[in-house]
Amino acid sequence: MALIVQKYGGTSVGSAERIKAVAAKVKKWRDDGHDVVVVVSAMSGETNRLIDLAKSIQATPVPRELDVLVATGEQVTIALLSMALDEIGCPARSYTGHQVHILTDSVHSKARILEIDDQRIRADLAKGRVVVVAGFQGSDQDGNITTLGRGGSDTSAVALAAALKADECQIYTDVDGVYTTDPRVVSAARRLDRITFEEMLEMASLGSKVLQIRSVEFAGKYNVPLRVLSSFVEGAGTLITYEDEEMEDALISGIAFNRDEAKLTVLGVPDHPGVASKILGPIGKANIEVDMIIQNTGADDTTDFTFTVHRNDYAAALKILAKVKDELGARAVSSDDKIVKISLVGVGMRSHAGIASTMFEALANEGINIRMISTSEIKISVVVDEKYLELGVRTLHSAFGLDQAPN
Amino acid sequence: MALIVQKYGGTSVGSAERIKAVAAKVKKWRDDGHDVVVVVSAMSGETNRLIDLAKSIQATPVPRELDVLVATGEQVTIALLSMALDEIGCPARSYTGHQVHILTDSVHSKARILEIDDQRIRADLAKGRVVVVAGFQGSDQDGNITTLGRGGSDTSAVALAAALKADECQIYTDVDGVYTTDPRVVSAARRLDRITFEEMLEMASLGSKVLQIRSVEFAGKYNVPLRVLSSFVEGAGTLITYEDEEMEDALISGIAFNRDEAKLTVLGVPDHPGVASKILGPIGKANIEVDMIIQNTGADDTTDFTFTVHRNDYAAALKILAKVKDELGARAVSSDDKIVKISLVGVGMRSHAGIASTMFEALANEGINIRMISTSEIKISVVVDEKYLELGVRTLHSAFGLDQAPN
Repeated sequence: MALIVQKYGGTSVGSAERIKAVAAKVKKWRDDGHDVVVVVSAMSGETNRLIDLAKSIQATPVPRELDVLVATGEQVTIALLSMALDEIGCPARSYTGHQVHILTDSVHSKARILEIDDQRIRADLAKGRVVVVAGFQGSDQDGNITTLGRGGSDTSAVALAAALKADECQIYTDVDGVYTTDPRVVSAARRLDRITFEEMLEMASLGSKVLQIRSVEFAGKYNVPLRVLSSFVEGAGTLITYEDEEMEDALISGIAFNRDEAKLTVLGVPDHPGVASKILGPIGKANIEVDMIIQNTGADDTTDFTFTVHRNDYAAALKILAKVKDELGARAVSSDDKIVKISLVGVGMRSHAGIASTMFEALANEGINIRMISTSEIKISVVVDEKYLELGVRTLHSAFGLDQAPN
Repeated sequence: MALIVQKYGGTSVGSAERIKAVAAKVKKWRDDGHDVVVVVSAMSGETNRLIDLAKSIQATPVPRELDVLVATGEQVTIALLSMALDEIGCPARSYTGHQVHILTDSVHSKARILEIDDQRIRADLAKGRVVVVAGFQGSDQDGNITTLGRGGSDTSAVALAAALKADECQIYTDVDGVYTTDPRVVSAARRLDRITFEEMLEMASLGSKVLQIRSVEFAGKYNVPLRVLSSFVEGAGTLITYEDEEMEDALISGIAFNRDEAKLTVLGVPDHPGVASKILGPIGKANIEVDMIIQNTGADDTTDFTFTVHRNDYAAALKILAKVKDELGARAVSSDDKIVKISLVGVGMRSHAGIASTMFEALANEGINIRMISTSEIKISVVVDEKYLELGVRTLHSAFGLDQAPN
């Protein structure tokens, strides 16, 4: 008998029928003798419907009130799921974030969880009830309703699992686990049985958007075993934990990629302290998130400074750089929004040389020119022309033996 | 400068445009220097949508969870109205029932308000904010979400007005006040400038469904001046207060009626103690509400016992009586579901004889046979055949001079 926290996303609870299916799934775990806490999102489409409603009133809705509004989405789901559980003879109780004291800071629409009071939940579990909690929401110390931002239901689930010291936090999604790469790009992509928190972080941030990144960080920090599995098909999914012996064999766990990158380079920047912040300061102030940052040693007393942003922010970033260039006395700005990033991810590469050269060689054999390179302890990322995305990912998937199941 | 509590119903906030119109109305009061607390219902159609959703999961939804579900309706409106107010430069804050501590008992779906903590509202008013509160909802002492039942937003508004000792509680509806009778039946029906709480109670319970009855009782109990007015047309509406000198002139304030009545009579009941409860006990147990109850002195040692119920409950009541009749040794059961009730209402009739005879004579002149009569201090009700409803109401409206404005 274990204590399990399960999280079902918007698609999994998108209709009355699906909510009933989730109830049946939950009851099965309960019947097997486990204590179950369920965290749910708003029914799919509901959050967008509410945001559209807000925007029909106010172009930029007051953040405090937007949170009051969208928090209703999850509240609807917890009530419906509790009814569905009751209907099949599984006693349940629903709670909003506020009701189980999910205390957050006061940053509306992207609040962070500070504390959870597990008393009420434990009392219900002790009475044999399933506890159904609204994901994505909490309240600040003044009792104002807050939300954790899109995808925050994953974070709610992990935070609850941490507070309750749950044995496992199961995230039910519309995919049946974490794959070596996107199966739509490489048909030979395989589901991983296990992956480490660090690898998952690299995979998620690089575009394999299975889990919200913050929930993975949170799970890693509190060592909550996290399992990604499908709401719709049976299967063990992918377990995300800390590295263990079993996992050492695999050099590379997967290949992530990101189609939405654009790169900007400030050429001939005077090579002295403070330059980087003078370039990225205004970018940050404009709320533009920067992904890769690369600066090579300059050949003379100038250097070239490159970074990548989401394509949606490309035009805005370019406009800012035009101004920054003059202020810095840089030579020029060059840019390209037809690029993609491909990354090898694997904790195994830490102790193995030769990964990088295998990677570059495989790409070269296919005539793919590498535009940028950036590495961390457990990943190597390259930027290539957009048109090479599929070829590049397939080539690397095969070059690192990911097409075959590990022995 | 006064403290005003305003309540806007579902139709008044039924769309983004209407919410904006309400915001403009509220701002006008604010700009005139008044403190304004606004109570809102769910957008029209929303509560039914949520209930349908619940019923698609569970035929009889768990009451606690149904309250969690439907409470989201008002939460959506408070957020949207606060945005609309902010948008036109009128600072506002929304609160759920729970957030302003509208403490209720634990009877889900028809909870009663026990207490309201006005601290948070007063603090916001002091800062120049409009306070927007979700009607219809509260929470019990364990923090469970409760609702007050359909139409409960009126009660919320009155309870808030009482707690805040507001100068006036304004109920905005889709009618522009309380009328002498239904204008659809009598085109000469007039809007009343004033009416007493007691008269309003009789009018409301008798079918002029402008205000929820409980809210009128509440307003009377705490002496909160209540004003019914239109969300859509300008006008002073109808003020509901205690009787004052001005009002003594009018004998009759209005004529109410009820189309949905059915009557049942147990004939030849042995005339001894406990008979009435033996008849009405099983009716009450079947959750059938009884309206009029009439028992006349018997001619011999038996009597006839008559009561009226809603037509929806007619068949069920008849079935129960068939059984009760045999148990009591009564002679027979007679019944009629083609009857209506017409009532004269007015505090003035207390001190004036002759009202009843004028009424009966006016009806007799039109050939309308009176089937039953029942009176209270401020009303006289008669039951007549369904076909006479319109004629009866028109006749009385004219007989008591309601067609003309009072001098």
